[in-house]
Amino acid sequence: MIGVFDSGYGGLTVLKDLLKELPQYDYLYLGDNSRAPYGNHSPETIARFSEQAIEYLFRQGCPLIIIACNTASTALRPLQEKYLRKPKITDRKILGVIRPVVEAAVLATSPNQQIGVVGTRATIQSKSYETELKHLGAKALKVYGQACPLLVPLVEEHWYKKPETRMILKKYLLPLKSCNIDTLILGCTHYPFLYREFCRIMGKKVRVLKTGEIVAASLKDYLKRHSEIETLLTRKSRRFFLTTDDSERFKKLGSEFLQQPLREVKKINL
Amino acid sequence: MIGVFDSGYGGLTVLKDLLKELPQYDYLYLGDNSRAPYGNHSPETIARFSEQAIEYLFRQGCPLIIIACNTASTALRPLQEKYLRKPKITDRKILGVIRPVVEAAVLATSPNQQIGVVGTRATIQSKSYETELKHLGAKALKVYGQACPLLVPLVEEHWYKKPETRMILKKYLLPLKSCNIDTLILGCTHYPFLYREFCRIMGKKVRVLKTGEIVAASLKDYLKRHSEIETLLTRKSRRFFLTTDDSERFKKLGSEFLQQPLREVKKINL
Repeated sequence: MIGVFDSGYGGLTVLKDLLKELPQYDYLYLGDNSRAPYGNHSPETIARFSEQAIEYLFRQGCPLIIIACNTASTALRPLQEKYLRKPKITDRKILGVIRPVVEAAVLATSPNQQIGVVGTRATIQSKSYETELKHLGAKALKVYGQACPLLVPLVEEHWYKKPETRMILKKYLLPLKSCNIDTLILGCTHYPFLYREFCRIMGKKVRVLKTGEIVAASLKDYLKRHSEIETLLTRKSRRFFLTTDDSERFKKLGSEFLQQPLREVKKINL
Repeated sequence: MIGVFDSGYGGLTVLKDLLKELPQYDYLYLGDNSRAPYGNHSPETIARFSEQAIEYLFRQGCPLIIIACNTASTALRPLQEKYLRKPKITDRKILGVIRPVVEAAVLATSPNQQIGVVGTRATIQSKSYETELKHLGAKALKVYGQACPLLVPLVEEHWYKKPETRMILKKYLLPLKSCNIDTLILGCTHYPFLYREFCRIMGKKVRVLKTGEIVAASLKDYLKRHSEIETLLTRKSRRFFLTTDDSERFKKLGSEFLQQPLREVKKINL
């Protein structure tokens, strides 16, 4: 069973692509809706909440956990450190969404080597994308981060095509447009709902990366290379959903994010 | 010591008026920032989180607790039931912000007897304002509720005067304008920052009630009538602040909401 953790609904946009690319596995999705959104929380709080979720998913028997939330993924390194390094554990793994997207961005960028990242305030302030780029040795690349804190509430209200959303998005993207970036990372799982708007505002010269697809392709590749983890995964195409808030509401709103009906959702406390 | 509980920063706008009206008492403010905003949470989650906060404040020795958050105030009746009725307790009290504002609205409304309420989704869906009106026996009054879920994020971004905020506010208020209301209750502690915009959009015929002032005046009156609680309150004009998220951030943003500096903020877990 692959555990997929998100602060709320957003990670379902990643799960949607995982189900398309790797449908054979069992998935257990956990949305911490009662404490969402994480986007304005402090790094310590994000790390503490993420740790509780990770611990819960490990206890449920997930050998592999995907942190599908960009904001929660900023806490990935300390979590890996805590759970997997001391003592070295090889039958458990936690993966985030930042690393694969940064790898894809490095391949995509040309000729300016200027990458833009949009995300929540916590994600941008963490400078996690810059850190990952450094780890990849891509020091020549320049990353411009832009926090877009109003986009999550606008998406959760389904205001995808309202003029107010377009105006706010334009305001957020103006600094990035003036930086002459050639690649834009949508560093928040809510933003794919605004994908066309992002493309329209940034113009044809900027490639807007589809995070979910990249993460799914990267996981497929990872599982090929790591049979020690892959063999631990059950393959009955089952999907389980957990939320820390009302299960009926999750079923309703979640099915819009996943773009398919959620049959059963269980409420838990973390 | 008077305990003041809010999901985050909003209750500080109420505390500001309490300090103006009743400066002599000691106050202990608790903001549950790590799980805020509450506005889209389910009634069960709001009740559970509020209960944890109330219990904490009682443990700190507050004989009187003001739930300064409208959304959390929707959970007031079950909390009073649990903590104060069985067995009957007379040296502890929990007060919300809905009751005093509804009382003021009943006095203010004329001649249409049509009242509008704006608030978070949870507040409006709870129909707590309608329930309080029924308890007051004011059945002839008609209440029109309007959820405005984007206003809290807009206020927290300080977008008070941006054209996008005005457009969104106009959109929310359009149904209330067509209902011919004569009194509008700002049923969320973030909305006073948009007070002038509300007045401008609703026009001169609609009275927009200032919640903080009403709650402060109501508490003053309550303490006059309830000496058994009043004598339990310490009177050294001290102010203490607690948050469940980062204390430095609370100090910075909180001082904007309170409109005075916050000297010391302590982080706690609920």
